Amino acid sequence: MTPQRLNAGIAGASGYAGGELLRLLLAHPGVEVTQITSEQHAGKFAYHVHPHLRGQTTLRFIPRESLAPCDVLFLAMPHGEAQAHIDRYAALAQRIVDLSADFRLRDAARYAAAYEHEHSAPDWLPRFVYGLPELNGSLLTNAVYASGVGCNATATILALWALVKGCVIEPNQPIIVDLKVGSSEAGNTPSPSSHHPARSGVVRPFQLTGHRHEAEVRQTFAGYGDFDVRMAVTSVEMVRGVSAAVHVTLPQGLPERELWQHYRATWEGMPFIRIVHDKNGLHRHPEPRLLAGTNYADVGWEYDPVTGRTVLLCALDNLGKGAAGSAVQCMNLMCGFEETTALTFGGIYP
Amino acid sequence: MTPQRLNAGIAGASGYAGGELLRLLLAHPGVEVTQITSEQHAGKFAYHVHPHLRGQTTLRFIPRESLAPCDVLFLAMPHGEAQAHIDRYAALAQRIVDLSADFRLRDAARYAAAYEHEHSAPDWLPRFVYGLPELNGSLLTNAVYASGVGCNATATILALWALVKGCVIEPNQPIIVDLKVGSSEAGNTPSPSSHHPARSGVVRPFQLTGHRHEAEVRQTFAGYGDFDVRMAVTSVEMVRGVSAAVHVTLPQGLPERELWQHYRATWEGMPFIRIVHDKNGLHRHPEPRLLAGTNYADVGWEYDPVTGRTVLLCALDNLGKGAAGSAVQCMNLMCGFEETTALTFGGIYP
Amino acid sequence: MTPQRLNAGIAGASGYAGGELLRLLLAHPGVEVTQITSEQHAGKFAYHVHPHLRGQTTLRFIPRESLAPCDVLFLAMPHGEAQAHIDRYAALAQRIVDLSADFRLRDAARYAAAYEHEHSAPDWLPRFVYGLPELNGSLLTNAVYASGVGCNATATILALWALVKGCVIEPNQPIIVDLKVGSSEAGNTPSPSSHHPARSGVVRPFQLTGHRHEAEVRQTFAGYGDFDVRMAVTSVEMVRGVSAAVHVTLPQGLPERELWQHYRATWEGMPFIRIVHDKNGLHRHPEPRLLAGTNYADVGWEYDPVTGRTVLLCALDNLGKGAAGSAVQCMNLMCGFEETTALTFGGIYP
Amino acid sequence: MTPQRLNAGIAGASGYAGGELLRLLLAHPGVEVTQITSEQHAGKFAYHVHPHLRGQTTLRFIPRESLAPCDVLFLAMPHGEAQAHIDRYAALAQRIVDLSADFRLRDAARYAAAYEHEHSAPDWLPRFVYGLPELNGSLLTNAVYASGVGCNATATILALWALVKGCVIEPNQPIIVDLKVGSSEAGNTPSPSSHHPARSGVVRPFQLTGHRHEAEVRQTFAGYGDFDVRMAVTSVEMVRGVSAAVHVTLPQGLPERELWQHYRATWEGMPFIRIVHDKNGLHRHPEPRLLAGTNYADVGWEYDPVTGRTVLLCALDNLGKGAAGSAVQCMNLMCGFEETTALTFGGIYP
Repeated sequence: MTPQRLNAGIAGASGYAGGELLRLLLAHPGVEVTQITSEQHAGKFAYHVHPHLRGQTTLRFIPRESLAPCDVLFLAMPHGEAQAHIDRYAALAQRIVDLSADFRLRDAARYAAAYEHEHSAPDWLPRFVYGLPELNGSLLTNAVYASGVGCNATATILALWALVKGCVIEPNQPIIVDLKVGSSEAGNTPSPSSHHPARSGVVRPFQLTGHRHEAEVRQTFAGYGDFDVRMAVTSVEMVRGVSAAVHVTLPQGLPERELWQHYRATWEGMPFIRIVHDKNGLHRHPEPRLLAGTNYADVGWEYDPVTGRTVLLCALDNLGKGAAGSAVQCMNLMCGFEETTALTFGGIYP
Repeated sequence: MTPQRLNAGIAGASGYAGGELLRLLLAHPGVEVTQITSEQHAGKFAYHVHPHLRGQTTLRFIPRESLAPCDVLFLAMPHGEAQAHIDRYAALAQRIVDLSADFRLRDAARYAAAYEHEHSAPDWLPRFVYGLPELNGSLLTNAVYASGVGCNATATILALWALVKGCVIEPNQPIIVDLKVGSSEAGNTPSPSSHHPARSGVVRPFQLTGHRHEAEVRQTFAGYGDFDVRMAVTSVEMVRGVSAAVHVTLPQGLPERELWQHYRATWEGMPFIRIVHDKNGLHRHPEPRLLAGTNYADVGWEYDPVTGRTVLLCALDNLGKGAAGSAVQCMNLMCGFEETTALTFGGIYP
Repeated sequence: MTPQRLNAGIAGASGYAGGELLRLLLAHPGVEVTQITSEQHAGKFAYHVHPHLRGQTTLRFIPRESLAPCDVLFLAMPHGEAQAHIDRYAALAQRIVDLSADFRLRDAARYAAAYEHEHSAPDWLPRFVYGLPELNGSLLTNAVYASGVGCNATATILALWALVKGCVIEPNQPIIVDLKVGSSEAGNTPSPSSHHPARSGVVRPFQLTGHRHEAEVRQTFAGYGDFDVRMAVTSVEMVRGVSAAVHVTLPQGLPERELWQHYRATWEGMPFIRIVHDKNGLHRHPEPRLLAGTNYADVGWEYDPVTGRTVLLCALDNLGKGAAGSAVQCMNLMCGFEETTALTFGGIYP
Repeated sequence: MTPQRLNAGIAGASGYAGGELLRLLLAHPGVEVTQITSEQHAGKFAYHVHPHLRGQTTLRFIPRESLAPCDVLFLAMPHGEAQAHIDRYAALAQRIVDLSADFRLRDAARYAAAYEHEHSAPDWLPRFVYGLPELNGSLLTNAVYASGVGCNATATILALWALVKGCVIEPNQPIIVDLKVGSSEAGNTPSPSSHHPARSGVVRPFQLTGHRHEAEVRQTFAGYGDFDVRMAVTSVEMVRGVSAAVHVTLPQGLPERELWQHYRATWEGMPFIRIVHDKNGLHRHPEPRLLAGTNYADVGWEYDPVTGRTVLLCALDNLGKGAAGSAVQCMNLMCGFEETTALTFGGIYP
């Protein structure tokens, strides 16, 4: 333990995103996790809740009110907790990364519309940078407060970004986003819908209109038009993972190389975005299964030049790139670490 | 075995659709299956290939060329076989139900466009009735030749039919059909893409533009307009099942009861279509898992009256309603049996 | 509804075994289910809890105290409920089949040892016949009270029975029973262990010594010796199903045909037991997946004549043959129906 | 690339074990993989076969005959290939780790008995050290040739080792090893048994007597007695993983702390063995799912002091600790690297 390592705390470390964060930070050479909180499991070892961390840490959960000052504080609590006590948390740490939905939108009215209640700390909204490093990298480098990202929003944004940025997608059309998601998206609290006999093997449409993450996507793309993004979510048999299929119509007759150019120009130098667009082979499109445990997002497309029919694709791990991975990446940028530190695990197969 | 039972043969009984057909027909009180063919497994007992039929039949596979005349002949061979020898098969049986794609389209040009080769028996195309009993029930009652249905086409057609028939969906928009399908759709031949370590747990986009079943759907809806149906298929972790999510825009402000009226008017009296559209509960939308082994198709929708955004849903078993179930239902109509005979199994849960 | 159909009630019809019972009885030509109870869901339609029964019944749950007299009453309540109020239930119906563990053991001391509390109605214990029709068929024909069976006990008993009955297995050895079970065994109440993200894909040893069902097995085999049956249970990724592997040592040098003789002699004429013992092919041993939804139990073995090492196998559906299926089979015998009525569904594949 | 990094080659790098080896070695700071072979995929990029390595290496497969000399050579070819050409491979590299079964047994007669053919290079057998570092660590430190380990053998050995070494298990009893394994154990060649519709959701007993790995286990324990190890394998729904349940009878009345002492004494200081033996909680026994992608083996037990009935447990990843992980660990010891280098990934959850 070199003295120059940053002290990090995780408020809300017993949930799935908090556990992933802890796993990543335990392997981070520049950070020492010194405190983790859980109201329900206070006093227990981390591995009691996160069995994969057995032998990796002897940290025990403490209650939130016992948090001491630290260099960087991650908030991974249920939505609403962070905004309710943001002043207290800000007093504890110079840098904060909040994984909840509390500080993703900059505009209080937009927040109220999406979440159906007034924000408790609207003054804080513009102080947070939306924590998607691939789009906001330079802002994050200078930030002290970063929000997390919505996992479904991230998959949607990354699927679309190269062609939105390249102005290839005209805004005056429905942007149909059909998302297939795993069971960990619903968190770690048992319920009838998560009960294994009921959840196993399903293809269950469950959020077909009015997804809250649409606001994040539209905010992100605001400089390029007001896109009619329509996210529909279906639960499938998978624990970790999001797969976004974005159905749009592009101009007819585009050459493939032009699409390649937009993708390459957009993602060049981005260490965690891979273009997956092969002509043959089994894995020629992005697949979330390959990305479990990683901070990678794979993007790709299929385009029919005769009709203009197009499906844009993105796959990622909802707990990785869609939550804890991006949060650590933000911290790396905010704290002057190499962007990829502790995030290079590339996944396993088969 | 009463003498008045019809003699039935199944050409191509070792595949998944053929096996499902055999399972259903073995329990049919008005039919006796007297011959089943398989080139690869000729001489073996049916249960060698279909282990669930152990103890239910002592039939053995014979080669196709050994087929004897029978009352009704089911063809469940690889696409192309039926059209190549339809004259021979027609000489063997008065009534034929062909489960392949060979006789689903009425028009040879449309066939050639969809399947990229000329049809070998174009004169036969108009003699087959498209075997979807919910739409072609009266035609089938008088038919002697029925085609099978495409499983993905069936899910798409049934998801849309109530609102197409009711002229609620305007044709001048893309009809985005996002289909999630199980592994049995690809048949019973092992391949790298079906290898369990590679196929397990995937969300794998694999046919995103140019799906051949689009031709079936457009043909079916031809009387109501030329719909721009865009089917995109994703493989998910499931053996049996198709779930279709059809994304369209409806006029704003429709009252829910109007949609209910269209669905009720369309599906009333149809024994195998269930409207699943609940306000709450876990299973408020159609789910394919509930339908494994059944001839049911569940249909539903979600509609946002403020924006007109709509997702129409249909779930079914690709081997049941999407193949063998509909084929038996056709036979029931063609042969004067009660439409539901041998098809009332309602599925298991959990 | 012909007047001669028996009126049946199900007390505890919202659980998984109760739901399976309801499904089976709805298709039984000699029975009309007239009342189903659930404390939690009183007032709701059956299909609200059992979504596969949508369209099959308009029954609603009532509370237990509203039960009216009926011809046959099934009790499928949590263990302990039946014994606490057996006098009341016996006053309601002439014939009772109880699926719980309350009346499986004949001896109150044995019950107290296995379940760690005194039985509330010990006088009733000898009045119940242990409801495994393959072993107690003639007793059941004349019975008015039948207990249900333990699913793991049933798999163990059926795996062993032919060789216990044939006195091929010597009692003076440990009988190691390694059971692999699905998630529905734990019932329909969500818990951390059944939460999909935690339960998915596991191989989780959870009950390795001291399984309560051992008492059922030993009672069943009591006439042949006091067998040291050691059941160990492991949860695997499956919803329905039990697979029992019984490891024993047999005398060396037995000819295969002798084992076949014992199996054939034991199971001949038993409609729901299939001997699965093939020399080749993919499905040469019993597999629970093939049996989901059925009342079948498949039995088999592997024996090494050089060493005497032997594994006896049984697979079944814990909710079917291991619970509701056997219960209906008991009722068929008790009420004079054909033994196989409503139980002939043979399962689906793939 | 510092000049002092070792050059490594992998012969047979397109299989699952070879792919895992490649993944691990690409992240090893002391090794540079310079050549990978595949007859079938020669000329293709590694990521064509191992999609998770996209972006991680630009290596292409070469045919075996193109192998050039290197510092360390891994052989991960089908069983039989290594022994057929071991002289040639030994001429290419000073150090060899062979993952196949070719050099695990020291005795040619034992090999012939287990594998039913004569070994092609019996003189080489005693030159290889059995590559299980937890038991043969000091031998491996000085070794130049190491065999790989059998995945099922490793799980069995590690489950038993603490109590065999401690002489707690008496040899004069059957040692029943019930193994549950994932689909990757069967390799990457599609077959009817690995076809997803047929393999999905199974509990399939497939190798119940006469497992070849028994010879490895008995050889390993030879110094402590001739144990009657009886391995029986069942395929379950899982891709990676082995779970061994070893059923034995221990002396009655042992205090728990004595078992703890044996485990602690045996495994203390072993970085990849974790004792998992909790009194409560969800994960109180070893579970393979937690170990996918790792080099960890978790061991535990359940013991009933009244009867002496005992189940010993071990879980591991068949491709990790059971193959490529142990191979890299061997190389670390053989080449003077820190034993844990490139092997510290601890797995993900959920």
